[in-house]
Amino acid sequence: MGKLYVVGFGPGGYAHMTAKAIEVMERADLITGYTTYVEMLKEFFPDKTYLATPMMQEVKRCRMAVEEAMKEQTVAMVSSGDSGIYGMAGIVYQVAEEMQADISIETVPGVTAASAAASVLGAPLMHDFAVISLSDLMTPLELIWKRVACAGESDLVVCLYNPKSKKRTTYVERAAEILMQYRSPETPVGVVRHAGRREEKSCITTLAEVQEVPMDMFSIVIVGNSQSYVSQGRLITPRGYRI
Amino acid sequence: MGKLYVVGFGPGGYAHMTAKAIEVMERADLITGYTTYVEMLKEFFPDKTYLATPMMQEVKRCRMAVEEAMKEQTVAMVSSGDSGIYGMAGIVYQVAEEMQADISIETVPGVTAASAAASVLGAPLMHDFAVISLSDLMTPLELIWKRVACAGESDLVVCLYNPKSKKRTTYVERAAEILMQYRSPETPVGVVRHAGRREEKSCITTLAEVQEVPMDMFSIVIVGNSQSYVSQGRLITPRGYRI
Repeated sequence: MGKLYVVGFGPGGYAHMTAKAIEVMERADLITGYTTYVEMLKEFFPDKTYLATPMMQEVKRCRMAVEEAMKEQTVAMVSSGDSGIYGMAGIVYQVAEEMQADISIETVPGVTAASAAASVLGAPLMHDFAVISLSDLMTPLELIWKRVACAGESDLVVCLYNPKSKKRTTYVERAAEILMQYRSPETPVGVVRHAGRREEKSCITTLAEVQEVPMDMFSIVIVGNSQSYVSQGRLITPRGYRI
Repeated sequence: MGKLYVVGFGPGGYAHMTAKAIEVMERADLITGYTTYVEMLKEFFPDKTYLATPMMQEVKRCRMAVEEAMKEQTVAMVSSGDSGIYGMAGIVYQVAEEMQADISIETVPGVTAASAAASVLGAPLMHDFAVISLSDLMTPLELIWKRVACAGESDLVVCLYNPKSKKRTTYVERAAEILMQYRSPETPVGVVRHAGRREEKSCITTLAEVQEVPMDMFSIVIVGNSQSYVSQGRLITPRGYRI
């Protein structure tokens, strides 16, 4: 029976790939995914067969991957981070079911961008948090703002994925405005671009000033809760231990 | 200069450790952590020097780790999952600062329990979610319920860590009651115990029936949002693609 692995390979470098992700990619007959991810992987697995598809063609990419697996191939469908968090795992299961494909599917979890960004910033995720994408391609904008407000109201640390794109330039500012209804403008905020990759850059700012930080779809924004603080250049959310 | 790595080794097996976590543990002069974690690692790194400390002695464990690093040692302080999510990263930075330790500290992120559990259940984390611990050892219970309610109100997928302990037997039921104020009692819920370990067990139930599932501190509970569904034994939260 053909086998389709949905692999999250972590933030991007070899260091943060799991042993299982590496093993699966080394063993696969075909590695497929969004062009940017495939290009990242060629450096580490140069001799593999790749099938790259452009962005916005997720369903087509899944169909192709399922079709290849149906030919008794071992296919690794890859994405950065964790394939189970805003990843391809859900759509792969949906497409395989619709195609009535008699293949085996396995999700290989990876280090998600929130974890990678947090490790760069210090220790901002030591307490309860919400993960919210600011992309409104497939989510009504009203629901996104409602989620940001609820996270603000209940003092959750907030981790924003897809904070900015060419079309969505003001959403981070709006999210910060909503959070400032519940938290001080001085609340520390960490921004990491390309977490865990060679091009990694990070900075720590405040809710009031976060809109000044250059960012894009490769950035992660982590907004502290009311207890978070900055010390020695690190963003820390205390857990409550007595030191 | 001494070096202290705060290492998250993922759910427990070798397969889900990152290349970096493996490399750091192989290279460390000393591996230290809570007894249960140290016992897990001995199988994979049998020849290392270990220092195990019982639970509830987190500050003491950090002091010892910092002291060892101050002797020019390379120390790996380990925890399962991601060391940056409810892990030891925050307290290590706090203790090292209080001790004015002139050492280098680096956090090595890992696959967090939410990711491991999600990969077992299907694809429940395809959309925005909240991660909330039901342990009230260091968080006021009122704040925990407030967070659960806000997550319910804004239709976030909810991932509960530490759902039950010997002392806290009714908290999951209470959390489900709160969520049922906003979501159908038929909302699918996945429970995974020992995700990613040999003893792994999982089941899919509903909000109305989740309190019937045996669980403990090694379990993770993932409550779907209003769009989540179960198909072919998998818990799926759709992202919104047209199939």
